[in-house]
Amino acid sequence: MTAYDELMAFQRETSALGQIAGRLGWDQETVMPRGAAPQRAEEMAAIEAVLHARRSDPRVAEWLEQADPQDDVARAQLREIRRSYERTVKVPADLAKTIARVTSAAQGTWAQARADEDVAAFLPVLEEVVALKRQEGQALAQGGDVYDAMVEDYEPYTTGTQIAAIFDQMRPRLVALRAAVLDQPGPAALTGTFDAATQMRLSQKLATGFGYDLNTGRVDKAVHPFSSGSGLDVRITTRTSETDPFNCFYSTIHEVGHAAYEQGIDPAYLLTPLGQGVSMGVHESQSRIYENQLGRSRAYTGWLFGQMVEAFGNFGVADADAFYATVNRVHNGYIRTEADEVQYNLHIMLRFDLERELMSGDLQVSDLEGAWNDRFKADFGYAVDKPSNGCLQDVHWSVGLFGYFPTYSLGNVYAGCLNQALRSALPDLDTQLAEGDTSGATGWLRENLQRHGGLYAPRDIIQRASGMEPGPEPLLEYLEQKFGSLYGL
Amino acid sequence: MTAYDELMAFQRETSALGQIAGRLGWDQETVMPRGAAPQRAEEMAAIEAVLHARRSDPRVAEWLEQADPQDDVARAQLREIRRSYERTVKVPADLAKTIARVTSAAQGTWAQARADEDVAAFLPVLEEVVALKRQEGQALAQGGDVYDAMVEDYEPYTTGTQIAAIFDQMRPRLVALRAAVLDQPGPAALTGTFDAATQMRLSQKLATGFGYDLNTGRVDKAVHPFSSGSGLDVRITTRTSETDPFNCFYSTIHEVGHAAYEQGIDPAYLLTPLGQGVSMGVHESQSRIYENQLGRSRAYTGWLFGQMVEAFGNFGVADADAFYATVNRVHNGYIRTEADEVQYNLHIMLRFDLERELMSGDLQVSDLEGAWNDRFKADFGYAVDKPSNGCLQDVHWSVGLFGYFPTYSLGNVYAGCLNQALRSALPDLDTQLAEGDTSGATGWLRENLQRHGGLYAPRDIIQRASGMEPGPEPLLEYLEQKFGSLYGL
Repeated sequence: MTAYDELMAFQRETSALGQIAGRLGWDQETVMPRGAAPQRAEEMAAIEAVLHARRSDPRVAEWLEQADPQDDVARAQLREIRRSYERTVKVPADLAKTIARVTSAAQGTWAQARADEDVAAFLPVLEEVVALKRQEGQALAQGGDVYDAMVEDYEPYTTGTQIAAIFDQMRPRLVALRAAVLDQPGPAALTGTFDAATQMRLSQKLATGFGYDLNTGRVDKAVHPFSSGSGLDVRITTRTSETDPFNCFYSTIHEVGHAAYEQGIDPAYLLTPLGQGVSMGVHESQSRIYENQLGRSRAYTGWLFGQMVEAFGNFGVADADAFYATVNRVHNGYIRTEADEVQYNLHIMLRFDLERELMSGDLQVSDLEGAWNDRFKADFGYAVDKPSNGCLQDVHWSVGLFGYFPTYSLGNVYAGCLNQALRSALPDLDTQLAEGDTSGATGWLRENLQRHGGLYAPRDIIQRASGMEPGPEPLLEYLEQKFGSLYGL
Repeated sequence: MTAYDELMAFQRETSALGQIAGRLGWDQETVMPRGAAPQRAEEMAAIEAVLHARRSDPRVAEWLEQADPQDDVARAQLREIRRSYERTVKVPADLAKTIARVTSAAQGTWAQARADEDVAAFLPVLEEVVALKRQEGQALAQGGDVYDAMVEDYEPYTTGTQIAAIFDQMRPRLVALRAAVLDQPGPAALTGTFDAATQMRLSQKLATGFGYDLNTGRVDKAVHPFSSGSGLDVRITTRTSETDPFNCFYSTIHEVGHAAYEQGIDPAYLLTPLGQGVSMGVHESQSRIYENQLGRSRAYTGWLFGQMVEAFGNFGVADADAFYATVNRVHNGYIRTEADEVQYNLHIMLRFDLERELMSGDLQVSDLEGAWNDRFKADFGYAVDKPSNGCLQDVHWSVGLFGYFPTYSLGNVYAGCLNQALRSALPDLDTQLAEGDTSGATGWLRENLQRHGGLYAPRDIIQRASGMEPGPEPLLEYLEQKFGSLYGL
């Protein structure tokens, strides 16, 4: 066996163990008995310790040095293994353990503080998390930018400065679009109740309609929708609300976007570093284009309207045009996860700017609430009414996820580029979508993006697939055109 | 940290990883997407390799040598760790891998051969499995008895000779009892259909009624009922047949016996070698006493009759006495897993004698079918009609489980001893059971047996709990009395 072969055999077992850790996460959110939590924490710690030891195994460094890659795939495998190895060994084991312990407790403190609307109860804990994450960031950055080093965990080969340049172009146009849209009369919200079991049946149909393969996947209910796993075992969850069936349907389509990416990767990469989505941003580009550019299009919603009438009878929406407007209704709200296409990225940019300043030290934790509320007022035009609608709404910072938020909007930006290219490549896409047929679109995405898994760096794969340098212009044009037309601007 | 503390910390992680491997097994049998099978095989191999490396880690030998146990619990922990370590290092890694590979394929060959009623297709594979298992047994026995070494994996501190002595006492009396019972007219079998969802609802009630804690457990459907996991995450499965609700109810109660044992262990032993049932035989004593001595008693079936009438309406059984007879109906049959209390152990003894001879070399694989059929005819009085009703009916040998079968009957023997002691300790047990109240019985079992986990060797814990040297007499008396009375002998 060559050094490369030995390394890949070792890596294959590591990937298999990583899949197991992921499955435990799925189990915990879907089927685990509540009382199992303390034992599960030990189980997770044990498998994470095994993974950490393998990722930082000195033999990996030796194999990396000796390996003689014969082609681009092998070079890409080594690139990703090296990145993981160097990331792991840069952070002292004690610091990694402390972060795991502190963030695990901080999540509970955050949840309680949010329930109590008590920012002061959370701040000391957040202070500790921020200090530890800055320490970790310094270990990773080795003199470079701390925040960039954190972004690297979720969006490799991408810097905070690059992201800021994209967001700076987006913010004024989105603020203006939002204000113009909300100045117009909009459609009424959906009313009535929608049977939960019927929602689940229809969402299963939507999932398979978007190409989700139930032979290697399954749909369950969970508190928060998510997709989990790679290769031949990629599971999604969704949720139901009897008054808001769109939550179920679009959560499902969103998660199917993530899952289809994983299921669409070249089987030759199974259980290798290339056998999973290359970054959170590219992942989100798939979930967003499935959910929004395809799923919330006039053509597809026309078909979905018929499906809903068939499933629920007349539910008080006059016709397909009115349904399209209802699905894409823009309205004021504080909560990121409930935001529409127009306002979502404004929520992200707020968090991106604040967390970057927290990491650089330009913003103190004690000033966070004020900074949040000022920025919200500036972009949305009204004041935050309570902390659970403001700086306590997201779990991310409590568990140490700094550098993660911007990948959501990068996903939207990438989805904008892909959508433009897809529409050029498939001129009759709307005819297909109007019949509920997404196979042209999902096939194009699989062929041009999904099958490559981790082969190309995030911006490279978007560029290859879309034929353009990734930037926000296509997304902004899409949003201005779509909502300009919907709101008669 | 002392050597003992270091060893226990290491062992705790190993136990946690063992729990993860068990959970993957649960996942595979209940929720795993069908197409995930090839990936799952690699995941299982990866975690098994991790476990094997830890169980045979040279540091374990050093810690064992240096450890200075301060009490009986510490001594028992070391006893079990030493047993696992020595067992693991005795078998060459290559042989262990070959056995894993060959038995994995053999299971598929067996399933196909059973479907095709084609013994000849299975024999060459079984030959290979037998040869490999004998090799493994020789490595384990190191000059001692090969079959004893295999029994040790499932029923530690117990030999084939000891088991044979017990079985030799049982066989003639069970053959005679069986013949006498079947010479009498028996009750009719249950007729009609029973809604599957209602069965699942009632079985959930039976499960919690027998003390199963759903806060650290859950009930799912699977092809084969099983219990899985230890400590705070102990899950069971059951199944439903619309024409045979007893299958669902008694599978549930049986698995609850296993699960309650795990749930009843002293929490101080969580994720240690003592934190799980001590042997398959003692485990089976719990599942059997729950299912049979308690669940199929006149008193409990009287209560269950009322529950079934409430759930299903009149189902054609006149009264509680007739119901008791129906539940305990003895009838001819070829299949071990469908056998009643009278005949079950005869099925086991047949397998025990044959597998012991296969391991000693006294029986050739090519002569297995004939030997099976002769023995069946001798004990049951009629001929095997097809291989799937004969030597192809069980999966065990195909996957290398030699030495496992006798633990089923040891469980029955132990249950007989425990039942006799329990009845002495709780004179009004039947009054409680007649109201569906099992808490007196299950509380006694938890206090006297379950809570000790792996602290005492199998025969020792039965002796402590029952106050008698474990032997078959109580079981035989119980069976002769119960079925003598039911069949008017």
